[in-house]
Amino acid sequence: MDHYPLPMQRCLEALGKLPGLGRKSSQRILFHLLDNGPRATRELSEALGGLVEGVELCSSCRVYKTTGEPCGFCADPARDPKTMCIVETVGDVFLIEATGEYRGMYHALHGLLSPLKGIKPESLGLDLLKRRLEQEPVEEVILATPPTAEGEATASFLASLLSSRTGRVSRIAYGLPVGSGFQYVDAQTLSRSLQGRKEYLWDDRAKA
Amino acid sequence: MDHYPLPMQRCLEALGKLPGLGRKSSQRILFHLLDNGPRATRELSEALGGLVEGVELCSSCRVYKTTGEPCGFCADPARDPKTMCIVETVGDVFLIEATGEYRGMYHALHGLLSPLKGIKPESLGLDLLKRRLEQEPVEEVILATPPTAEGEATASFLASLLSSRTGRVSRIAYGLPVGSGFQYVDAQTLSRSLQGRKEYLWDDRAKA
Repeated sequence: MDHYPLPMQRCLEALGKLPGLGRKSSQRILFHLLDNGPRATRELSEALGGLVEGVELCSSCRVYKTTGEPCGFCADPARDPKTMCIVETVGDVFLIEATGEYRGMYHALHGLLSPLKGIKPESLGLDLLKRRLEQEPVEEVILATPPTAEGEATASFLASLLSSRTGRVSRIAYGLPVGSGFQYVDAQTLSRSLQGRKEYLWDDRAKA
Repeated sequence: MDHYPLPMQRCLEALGKLPGLGRKSSQRILFHLLDNGPRATRELSEALGGLVEGVELCSSCRVYKTTGEPCGFCADPARDPKTMCIVETVGDVFLIEATGEYRGMYHALHGLLSPLKGIKPESLGLDLLKRRLEQEPVEEVILATPPTAEGEATASFLASLLSSRTGRVSRIAYGLPVGSGFQYVDAQTLSRSLQGRKEYLWDDRAKA
């Protein structure tokens, strides 16, 4: 029952495969592009082409980088080579970067252990990770996989695998999301938040 | 404070200009494309390219059609040439088509009269519309602009312009949206719904 000209239909199908875009939002984008002249459409099409040609995985940390250029993380002398943060996805790297909190190295697993999905330790390319720990002066590995069943299993597996290969293995903290109230978190989060309590740090500036 | 490689940044910017896509949804789409291999990205990029090259406005009804091919509406002998439906956008045409209710011709204005935005009758290309009414056997013009201030002003302007040029000028009905209750519509809609009441049609099948 579709009456769209073929090029419009092809575009709707390709847009509909993107996460978060249903039929209605794809139609809205399609007509936005058509109604606003070819420039925006060309810009987007070329940007997508540039993604295919212009982005590749860093062979060391497996984070995306500009093709042919050194990795913005591995090659940055201002970053601390003694800390390595292990994450599930490359997206997580950029979320951590946005906090401005971390200035060490990264390693992206591109997945989590999952017996159900058939993802075993072999699938996560851990040889590369072990090799990095032999060659780089890493003193602390931060396990920053998500606090889900699969993320926990992966963190626990990595902890036992890496404990002999590095000085310290740490896990990101569990607790209440900032700005959230007790009523919005589950009992397990609250319990972890209590277990993970820390001595109150008086603000030094306030005392001075 | 962005640490994205340039091709990724360009893509985020182009995606962020699309309606309904904020920073977070653009990032989600970007990593979906990167994480799923170049095929989906190429498909989308090519579909967008095909939109620029492969779609043009029909010179008669001003609805989008495949470049170089006859218009799916104007050239379809199964459609009723005696009815013409005037809409604001091409998107509206495909929404009406999806109802399966209408089999007449269309005319897309690509805008509405709006003194505030400086859109005057001249801007809506009404010469083309007048010419069509002279050349085509149109007996009824349906004014299907939206029931907003600008849509009403446009409908009223078109009604006076076209009344001498065609047998009948009609306006789409106002009333309660199907499935909605009285509490969800404003007083004006309810009042229009009462004014537009129709004699109850007994179901012939039930009587038989």
